[in-house]
Amino acid sequence: MSAKVYRVNMNDLSVTTEEFPARWQGLGGRGLTSTVVAEEVVPTCHPLGKHNRLIFAPGLLTGTPAANSGRMSIGAKSPLTGTIKESNVGGVAGQLFARMGIRALIIEGEPPGEAFYHLHIGKDGIKIRVESELVGQGNFAAIEALQARMGRQVGVISIGPAGEMKLAAANISVCDPEGKVRSFGRGGLGAVMGAKRIKAITLDAAEAPPVTLAKPEQFKEASKVFSKALLGHPVSGEGLPNYGTNVLVNVINEAGGLPTRNFRQGQSTGHDNFSGEAMHATITARGGKPRHGCMPGCIIQCSQVFPDQDGEYLTSGFEYETIWGFGAHSGVEDLDHIARADRLMDDIGVDSIETAVAVGVAMEGGAIAYGDGAAAVDLVSEIRSGSPLGRIIGNGAASVGRAYGLTRVPVVKGQAIPAYDPRAIKGIGITYCTTPMGADHTAGYAVASNIMGIGGLVPPLEKEGQIELSRTLQMVTAAVDSTGLCLFVAMALSDDPLALPAMVDLLNARYGEELTPDDVVMLGRRILLTEHEFNMAAGFTNKDDRLPEFFSESLPPHNAVWDFSGEEIDEFWNF
Amino acid sequence: MSAKVYRVNMNDLSVTTEEFPARWQGLGGRGLTSTVVAEEVVPTCHPLGKHNRLIFAPGLLTGTPAANSGRMSIGAKSPLTGTIKESNVGGVAGQLFARMGIRALIIEGEPPGEAFYHLHIGKDGIKIRVESELVGQGNFAAIEALQARMGRQVGVISIGPAGEMKLAAANISVCDPEGKVRSFGRGGLGAVMGAKRIKAITLDAAEAPPVTLAKPEQFKEASKVFSKALLGHPVSGEGLPNYGTNVLVNVINEAGGLPTRNFRQGQSTGHDNFSGEAMHATITARGGKPRHGCMPGCIIQCSQVFPDQDGEYLTSGFEYETIWGFGAHSGVEDLDHIARADRLMDDIGVDSIETAVAVGVAMEGGAIAYGDGAAAVDLVSEIRSGSPLGRIIGNGAASVGRAYGLTRVPVVKGQAIPAYDPRAIKGIGITYCTTPMGADHTAGYAVASNIMGIGGLVPPLEKEGQIELSRTLQMVTAAVDSTGLCLFVAMALSDDPLALPAMVDLLNARYGEELTPDDVVMLGRRILLTEHEFNMAAGFTNKDDRLPEFFSESLPPHNAVWDFSGEEIDEFWNF
Repeated sequence: MSAKVYRVNMNDLSVTTEEFPARWQGLGGRGLTSTVVAEEVVPTCHPLGKHNRLIFAPGLLTGTPAANSGRMSIGAKSPLTGTIKESNVGGVAGQLFARMGIRALIIEGEPPGEAFYHLHIGKDGIKIRVESELVGQGNFAAIEALQARMGRQVGVISIGPAGEMKLAAANISVCDPEGKVRSFGRGGLGAVMGAKRIKAITLDAAEAPPVTLAKPEQFKEASKVFSKALLGHPVSGEGLPNYGTNVLVNVINEAGGLPTRNFRQGQSTGHDNFSGEAMHATITARGGKPRHGCMPGCIIQCSQVFPDQDGEYLTSGFEYETIWGFGAHSGVEDLDHIARADRLMDDIGVDSIETAVAVGVAMEGGAIAYGDGAAAVDLVSEIRSGSPLGRIIGNGAASVGRAYGLTRVPVVKGQAIPAYDPRAIKGIGITYCTTPMGADHTAGYAVASNIMGIGGLVPPLEKEGQIELSRTLQMVTAAVDSTGLCLFVAMALSDDPLALPAMVDLLNARYGEELTPDDVVMLGRRILLTEHEFNMAAGFTNKDDRLPEFFSESLPPHNAVWDFSGEEIDEFWNF
Repeated sequence: MSAKVYRVNMNDLSVTTEEFPARWQGLGGRGLTSTVVAEEVVPTCHPLGKHNRLIFAPGLLTGTPAANSGRMSIGAKSPLTGTIKESNVGGVAGQLFARMGIRALIIEGEPPGEAFYHLHIGKDGIKIRVESELVGQGNFAAIEALQARMGRQVGVISIGPAGEMKLAAANISVCDPEGKVRSFGRGGLGAVMGAKRIKAITLDAAEAPPVTLAKPEQFKEASKVFSKALLGHPVSGEGLPNYGTNVLVNVINEAGGLPTRNFRQGQSTGHDNFSGEAMHATITARGGKPRHGCMPGCIIQCSQVFPDQDGEYLTSGFEYETIWGFGAHSGVEDLDHIARADRLMDDIGVDSIETAVAVGVAMEGGAIAYGDGAAAVDLVSEIRSGSPLGRIIGNGAASVGRAYGLTRVPVVKGQAIPAYDPRAIKGIGITYCTTPMGADHTAGYAVASNIMGIGGLVPPLEKEGQIELSRTLQMVTAAVDSTGLCLFVAMALSDDPLALPAMVDLLNARYGEELTPDDVVMLGRRILLTEHEFNMAAGFTNKDDRLPEFFSESLPPHNAVWDFSGEEIDEFWNF
């Protein structure tokens, strides 16, 4: 099937199909979404207005049999940060896009009127219909209703009530193989989909052939090596499968970098209550699944199925950062409260990091008491109602900070800082400051080197080497986010000398190219610069590459402070 | 009395007195506050944090017998806009500062703990006490209680509940000669005072001598000429005294530039219900005062006393922009509803322009129905409660826009656009874009030339000449805002060839200097550049000098659009 681009113009509900253009060859996932945003979106436009565009793009390897290759990206100008934004996810949608030969779906304009729409993508192209039944419904109900209506084989991309209300923490959801919810989490892209008035996109690839491979044998060989590298690494082969990402609670707490009580301490006294080990025990005792893949072809299986006290499905994809946001940051140490909040956030359609941090900031402002789990769950639930308080929370941590007149608001470029204190893990602080995405640990996960020694230890409490570390990681990450591979392949890429060549071989075998590892890093470099340039054109400056001023306070137990000067941080972009 | 500067450090509640330094000679009012902010405030600091400073400075002529010379300025980094901010007001405080020889009061740091404080300034310097009685009280009650406690002769500067809550639309109030309320309105400086935890400042100048004049006879002569020019101008001598600033409803409506229904039309069908003429008739019928001076020595008397239906005092300083914000922008056409809202805003301590625009934007978002006066009054009242909805409104129009996911939000640099549509009155649009203060008509009131032909007509619907007009006016305004003169002297300055020399003579006679009119314009130029430079250092760029994108829609009845390119606007700063 020849590669194509769909354009949907919501002004008049028209669809055009274009051949995948030569200038975008070699781009997929984040590389493609960021390139299209940079080429086609007016940098100074209102993120919720008609000049913003929402771009969906599967990764370069998405749809192939390579392990952990099924991710896709969505890009736009972010309503949360005002920057360029890319967010990627597993689930089934990326693979369906790839099988139908869709390299990008670009949604433009805004429809007149108040109706919401449903886009169906199948063998006959795109059909756009008014969607009234599902308006106001949560993601779980929307997925269930759409699969009941159109068949269990369809993939669903949807927004919840938060996206419909265009709240800045709104995410975009995609169903996993069991019809549960995964999310394009960060940056409020659900609000852009809401502004385009699209409630859901369904994908039916039932009659589509498998993705073609230019060199099937070479692909198979590389795939074997690559899978072996993933399974052979202690993190992707052992830690993540056993405890999920929540294995990090004890690791980061031990390192003194677990931000506790709105970033006042680096260690939590209650960490044992919500650690990966505690979660594993709870899941096992209740007959849940400690291991689960969010997408077909996942061999890491860091997800899980977390049941409630009666053994009924409650949530999955129950991540460290979410659990930290309630557990340590907000003092809600009961895993059941956190799991209920996680379920609600998935259903309402808000980013769990942004929302969890917002809840802790609301405690700082006195909206609810610190550590009150029931009140925290209610606060999350409030978002669905569209009440003023729900809107404040659903617009994220910076919104809560403004509402309550606070200075202790952990955000960079308006996006919440996640679960790693930048004073005690300085490399991740450089990533928070400099990534074009607003504070985002996944943009250059220096924690791996600072704490786990992956790719060589860069001591976390020292300034030395952090700029270079974050820069290298951000380039590699931009490239990995373009491949459709899960970011958790990066551990093996760093430590196993066979992994990176295998990844490059996979790309070459898929497309019949002759890329070298350097080409892939250069791709990441180019993406990063494209994104940075967009932000500068949107009015950002180096003054936005800074942590909030309260990080000059020292953080126990190391009494670490954030001691990078502006000039030192600005060195990041000298490459 | 020798000129001095008081510094209050709220970190430890200490006070120091400094001689007025040579480098600040020739500076007062806005020129002084902006210079101190630029010298002493870290441009990237959090406006509500310990690194921001709040600077009070009477104008250069404040305290003298010159007509309309009693104003003072407050400056800081604004919590609403993030820019440098100056706001000035009449009332009695400026003259008391001047009589006590205080050229500036600089408030630094932030106190530990939750207490609010009361600063008393008298012949023995500054005394700082914990203030508990007045916390949570409105400005009317605070002024009444403080004057009852300390004597009717004391001047009072205070914040209402909005300032205590650090809401971004919070203003700072000052009592007028009758103990009623005037406000340093724009830019949220009340939130900075709240962050410094100062509920009120009282001023007792009972034993202070009059302000000294270097050349009393020359001053007297110049004063006569200046007064005559003010009274001889049709606007300051007739229009404003008879109808207040609200004379503009019919003028701007006739010009097609009265923003109606959140900037959808340029004319209101209901304008007769809330025009200056209607207001005058209501005041007269109820036994109120159509003319009133907000400060001793005012000969323009544009204020008024607006009584309720029983003839009881309801509000004063009932301005055109406030009345427009409810009347045309929000469709609340009943003057009594608007007056009640005005009274509430004065008492709660929020900027009436920001709040009125926020109310209209809340109608756009569906929070209350368009045109519902009782609901609008309730919405304003809600701010006092600290409820989530009150916080959304009390943080201003941009906050409401974010909460409700709107693109039709009339703000520049986060501050609400007031009562003149920039498409139909293009000169004021250039001022909105370029003033370092965020959208502010007073920063360079091109309406006077565009609509009233003051200083020569620059046709409002054409682009030609608007950049130069706004630039000249912004320079002159920055200078006038430094003198302590009411901005309404600018009409005479533009049209009466004797007025500007008389103003310069007043300055020379006060200080024994030899300034020329050019020196005064150069002072304005320097202030403007200082402010712009601060903003650039804070991270602003030319991308912030833009109107919201919805101004590309055409505005009836002229079907005018905002057609300045970015490059054209950027020409403003080429001087």
